[in-house]
Amino acid sequence: MQASSVQTVSIALGERSYPIQIGAGLLGAADTFEGLPRAASALIVTNTTVAPLYAQKLRQALAPHYARVLQVELPDGEAHKDWQTLNRIFDTLLGEGCDRKTVLFALGGGVVGDMTGFAAACYMRGVPFVQVPTTLLAQVDSSVGGKTAINHPHGKNMIGAFYQPHRVICDLDTLATLSARELSAGLAEVIKYGPIADMAFLDWIEAQLPALLARDTSALAHAVRRSCEIKAHVVGQDERESGLRAILNFGHTFGHAIEAGLGYGQWLHGEAVGCGMVMAARLSQRLGLVDGAFVDRLVDLIARAGLPIQGPDLGAQRYLDLMRVDKKAEGGEIRFVVIDGPGRAAMRAAPDALVREVLAASCA
Amino acid sequence: MQASSVQTVSIALGERSYPIQIGAGLLGAADTFEGLPRAASALIVTNTTVAPLYAQKLRQALAPHYARVLQVELPDGEAHKDWQTLNRIFDTLLGEGCDRKTVLFALGGGVVGDMTGFAAACYMRGVPFVQVPTTLLAQVDSSVGGKTAINHPHGKNMIGAFYQPHRVICDLDTLATLSARELSAGLAEVIKYGPIADMAFLDWIEAQLPALLARDTSALAHAVRRSCEIKAHVVGQDERESGLRAILNFGHTFGHAIEAGLGYGQWLHGEAVGCGMVMAARLSQRLGLVDGAFVDRLVDLIARAGLPIQGPDLGAQRYLDLMRVDKKAEGGEIRFVVIDGPGRAAMRAAPDALVREVLAASCA
Repeated sequence: MQASSVQTVSIALGERSYPIQIGAGLLGAADTFEGLPRAASALIVTNTTVAPLYAQKLRQALAPHYARVLQVELPDGEAHKDWQTLNRIFDTLLGEGCDRKTVLFALGGGVVGDMTGFAAACYMRGVPFVQVPTTLLAQVDSSVGGKTAINHPHGKNMIGAFYQPHRVICDLDTLATLSARELSAGLAEVIKYGPIADMAFLDWIEAQLPALLARDTSALAHAVRRSCEIKAHVVGQDERESGLRAILNFGHTFGHAIEAGLGYGQWLHGEAVGCGMVMAARLSQRLGLVDGAFVDRLVDLIARAGLPIQGPDLGAQRYLDLMRVDKKAEGGEIRFVVIDGPGRAAMRAAPDALVREVLAASCA
Repeated sequence: MQASSVQTVSIALGERSYPIQIGAGLLGAADTFEGLPRAASALIVTNTTVAPLYAQKLRQALAPHYARVLQVELPDGEAHKDWQTLNRIFDTLLGEGCDRKTVLFALGGGVVGDMTGFAAACYMRGVPFVQVPTTLLAQVDSSVGGKTAINHPHGKNMIGAFYQPHRVICDLDTLATLSARELSAGLAEVIKYGPIADMAFLDWIEAQLPALLARDTSALAHAVRRSCEIKAHVVGQDERESGLRAILNFGHTFGHAIEAGLGYGQWLHGEAVGCGMVMAARLSQRLGLVDGAFVDRLVDLIARAGLPIQGPDLGAQRYLDLMRVDKKAEGGEIRFVVIDGPGRAAMRAAPDALVREVLAASCA
């Protein structure tokens, strides 16, 4: 079987370049898995939610290519993105005698992708891996660009590696089984690309939001493709986030504080980013970079996407403490991604007093 | 104060190139630490044995360069090269609010260097680090070339990264406080470079062994420099061990099995490598690659260096099982580094029966 109308976006990183395949029916198409690194063994890393839905299909697709197709199922959710769960991948690999050519397949959302990628980066100092994202958030953001990590009790994604996959396979059919909450969380990362890079895309999202929420395949295909194009463009210029790449973290400084402050897994990552974008937009306004109409427009879209626009009341000081251990902070100074005029992002420090005003205006 | 007669060996890896400084008095010399990456904080990672000897000196040397010089002391020994101990480095970094410019300094032997390097590779997806090796083994081998790792109960160095330091600082004065056992362990890795790459160096080691065991500074300086030159040459051609670099693991396949089989820390790594070279030399002979006189000569030198030449009696099957999870194994086949004529190494598989013969001849 051939997948219909597959689109490919390329990530240009020299010898680490790779394609993102986007289309319906990719998991069942014979040619999807051609040309991957050869090995005796493949290991599918997935979670207990995704495994019953798609693992059998992936095993069948890999069977012609690998003599052994192994599988490990992790518990579902951000609360498990820790060393203990990561170690289950290593236990499986070593227990099964997997050598350093073994190919890992990340079948699931952002948590599975982040952990599988980090495990691949570390196992025997590096084995190849493939991203098979099954959530909208993973398809438009986390599976692309080679950021891998686990959380530490003191901060999100603190222990990790830049490690690129060999391929990203976005089967749009897998989005049919997402919960409404997971779909909205993914839309947060789609919306993000508008204000930081492409206002025409923001216009399109506003117009197509009902189709996206109804999971119209062609609308989803365009949302995934355009998101990946923008991400590929940014990552191609700054793989290791020495500058530009940080703009992809719009909403994430506030968002990570929400996730860590409530305890990982209380809010979905995309929900925290949605609310974090509201806060970052308001901060941009208070810094004089955008006007109130722009903020209102963005807040309205985030709310319509089914995302929270009011943050949890952690207390302003707790927000500030959590944000000071953000990876973008330098010398104790928090650095925010702000909107520096519609469609353009920048990094800025901000006075604590201004951040407190934003938090007061944005928290329950 | 200037260090006297500093020698520099360069590792040529494009934008990841770095110098290895070798000399007496380097820790106390003002210019040793010039030109490192600038940051608000430095973290010295050391262990409870080395800290009382050299940490104060390093702190003083770093004070002019970093506003904060932090320190974390790990328990000493290979038995602690695990995730739990690694996590103490992350706890310190996050607890102290260290940002992603923080520079890590590995002050100690191979275990400290491997763990500090891996922590630097993973913390916030990568911070700079400097190797300050204080054992002969670390100065001639483990601090050079960017291999970092921790152990897993199923195998040595199974979880790690290729991650290059910014500089390696080999202060020969630190070798004065080594135990005789640690000195001998270091000599194992010095001896290694002869049979795999440079028979003239083997001649020199044989002649200078009394001076080396007496810790004559100029003999040690030459041993460290020549070892680093050979390693730099090999690593410069094959950073990520896709081929050639594996020859540096002569004696290590058997050696890792000894370490894992007895429990990490029972034998020093260098002791296991010394005995492993005896086994690998005998295997080379049985494969028809070298003659008995060559093996006898190598075994004699290893014994004179104060290293074990008889392996522990783990049982041949246990050796084979442990070696099958070696990183060099592929598809269940163990691949050994053998001597393919004096001064030249190669990778070879070998029949289990032949390996059993070697073990029978080499174990207590």
